[in-house]
Amino acid sequence: MGLIVQKYGGTSVANPERIKSVARRVAAYRAQGHQVVVVVSAMSGETNRLIALAREIQAHPDPRELDVILSTGEQVTIGLLAMALKEQGVPAISYTGAQVQILTDSAHTKARILSIDEQNIRADLASGHAIVVAGFQGQDEDGNITTLGRGGSDTTAVALAAALRADECQIYTDVDGVYTTDPRMVPEARRLPRITFEEMLEMASLGSKVLQIRSVEFAGKYKVRLRVLSSLLDDPGEGTLITFEEDDNMEQAIISGIAFNRDEAKITVRGVPDKPGIAYQILGPVSEANIDVDMIIQNVGVDGSTDFSFTVHRNEYAKTMDTLKAQQARIGAIDVIGDDRIAKVSVVGVGMRSHVGIASQMFRTLAEEGINIQMISTSEIKISVVIDEKYLELAVRVLHKAFGLDQEAA
Amino acid sequence: MGLIVQKYGGTSVANPERIKSVARRVAAYRAQGHQVVVVVSAMSGETNRLIALAREIQAHPDPRELDVILSTGEQVTIGLLAMALKEQGVPAISYTGAQVQILTDSAHTKARILSIDEQNIRADLASGHAIVVAGFQGQDEDGNITTLGRGGSDTTAVALAAALRADECQIYTDVDGVYTTDPRMVPEARRLPRITFEEMLEMASLGSKVLQIRSVEFAGKYKVRLRVLSSLLDDPGEGTLITFEEDDNMEQAIISGIAFNRDEAKITVRGVPDKPGIAYQILGPVSEANIDVDMIIQNVGVDGSTDFSFTVHRNEYAKTMDTLKAQQARIGAIDVIGDDRIAKVSVVGVGMRSHVGIASQMFRTLAEEGINIQMISTSEIKISVVIDEKYLELAVRVLHKAFGLDQEAA
Repeated sequence: MGLIVQKYGGTSVANPERIKSVARRVAAYRAQGHQVVVVVSAMSGETNRLIALAREIQAHPDPRELDVILSTGEQVTIGLLAMALKEQGVPAISYTGAQVQILTDSAHTKARILSIDEQNIRADLASGHAIVVAGFQGQDEDGNITTLGRGGSDTTAVALAAALRADECQIYTDVDGVYTTDPRMVPEARRLPRITFEEMLEMASLGSKVLQIRSVEFAGKYKVRLRVLSSLLDDPGEGTLITFEEDDNMEQAIISGIAFNRDEAKITVRGVPDKPGIAYQILGPVSEANIDVDMIIQNVGVDGSTDFSFTVHRNEYAKTMDTLKAQQARIGAIDVIGDDRIAKVSVVGVGMRSHVGIASQMFRTLAEEGINIQMISTSEIKISVVIDEKYLELAVRVLHKAFGLDQEAA
Repeated sequence: MGLIVQKYGGTSVANPERIKSVARRVAAYRAQGHQVVVVVSAMSGETNRLIALAREIQAHPDPRELDVILSTGEQVTIGLLAMALKEQGVPAISYTGAQVQILTDSAHTKARILSIDEQNIRADLASGHAIVVAGFQGQDEDGNITTLGRGGSDTTAVALAAALRADECQIYTDVDGVYTTDPRMVPEARRLPRITFEEMLEMASLGSKVLQIRSVEFAGKYKVRLRVLSSLLDDPGEGTLITFEEDDNMEQAIISGIAFNRDEAKITVRGVPDKPGIAYQILGPVSEANIDVDMIIQNVGVDGSTDFSFTVHRNEYAKTMDTLKAQQARIGAIDVIGDDRIAKVSVVGVGMRSHVGIASQMFRTLAEEGINIQMISTSEIKISVVIDEKYLELAVRVLHKAFGLDQEAA
């Protein structure tokens, strides 16, 4: 008996049959005595259809108007799912993001949630309704419709779970949990029954694509119990539970998984003066252009000059290069160079903290395959390297094997 | 120099090319110094697609959730048109019905507009924007999304024109004005350069389908100058202007047009007691079931008993029969009978007031073709008859000719 927030992605609501299947699952949870809030995405293909339509009008669609258009995708799904629930005999009511209201900032197409007014949902839950909420969307304080960016429905679900103090937030997707790496690339990849929040954060941000990174951050911040499950199985099993504390009673695996991302591009600003404020001078204009930066690397300077490198999403490579070229003289850089044919590979694991030698094992494994490492970045629980894109699959496979991830845990 | 509200229907915004064409037209009006507010429908076919999707989930879709789904059709169009205007160099901003806000009652799928808050639109007009508003939709006082029913975009346009005290409300459609009858049925039908509000009201309600009846009522109530134009012609010309006063300087045509409607069904409650309150006893339950009634006929009673007949939309025939059968005993009626294979034909014209003999000419014309008249109803400016549906086309053609409507006015 509890309050569960469930999120179903586009493939889970791809057509009327699947929507009915979601309704049956929700009805089954309610029959067990749970209160259920369901967050849904647009039917798969719908968001792309709407973007294509917008691009027929404008090559670079106006962000405010694009949000007006894109938000209709989820709006159709909530109506359909609420109807399907009623057909199952479940009293149900739908909410758009604006109706909830989910208040966001005004950064159209990539807005951030500022607050959620959960009073109406609470009242409808109390009167026995199942609640269906449009993911991915909200409105700003001026009443403009906003969207949270791709994958934003996960964030909506976790944010709602936090606002409602739900007992669990279940993310239904087309995989049955979090794997040691992408099973499409490495058939020996195994499902992790549990993973720590920090590991999940690294896995998600590095491209494992099971959950959107902001949703995991939200879950960590508000201590939302988060579970990833398959919507395609009749019995979704236990999926993968994301935990917030390392379990000292368990034999902790040193490495939990190999993450990777092929959607990045690297940029190096060469020969900048090695003086305070230079990082801000370089990244300030990039940030103002609303470009997200991933890895940032600056090595020690030589003779008062240094090189500054970072990675961005591949789609923003040209824009970033243009932005920095325009600033090159002001920064006092010798050159701005880049490469959008790179990939990032990371080993992730909380056990890494107490084990030396992970980095050297990783570098040796790649060297044995003749894979050159272009950039290195480390955190407490992960080591990431940038390599030539063409070696990506090879690197992931050999690292997965080298760290024993294809073996069942003891 | 004035403020113009323009409404474009589904065929006028059927695809990106047509949307761009609408944007060019709006830009041209603005270049003449006008302020423009544009009301748009869903792209043609979209509303039917959404209804079909809903029906795959529920045979009788839940009205609240159907409105959530249907309102997305116009929402996509406003975003696309606002983008197309920006591409034309016109600053533009879109509004959903809820964003305006257009406040309606809570009768989902057939809501009525209660009020319009035009302050935001006025401010955006003052700052030089073209405004694009989603037709057909609003929200009730609890924030639920509502729709106004088929053709409701016309009503949105006229209501906005009234709220903004616009100089003219232009309804762009796939015909170039109001005709003496449907040109698809009678090739000799002629465009009327002007028509009085009362005639238009009769023509619209009787099925000429150029304008939705509620929009004409609204225009009459708030004295909105209303013009019907073609969106398919490069030069839409003058279309048909709807006037509010009979023009004494003009030779007034006796009959302006022949209207017809094949979407009706007739119901007769037989042998009810001829006493005060009986009409309410019959129509009260029908009205409570939210069924609109068109013609109502009750003849003088004989021997304390009378027959009571009325017509409803054909889609509501079964529901109406069920409602009345359930009430038959309470009403004290002998029987409830009906027929949904009927059609209504009307001759309309303000000139009828000062000319006798119109009715007899109409009845003689029908009799000469052997068409039996089942019901008759008259008003100041129209005479309507109900006939067997199979004679509809014949009746319209012979009446159009009998009243000289195929001749150019002197």
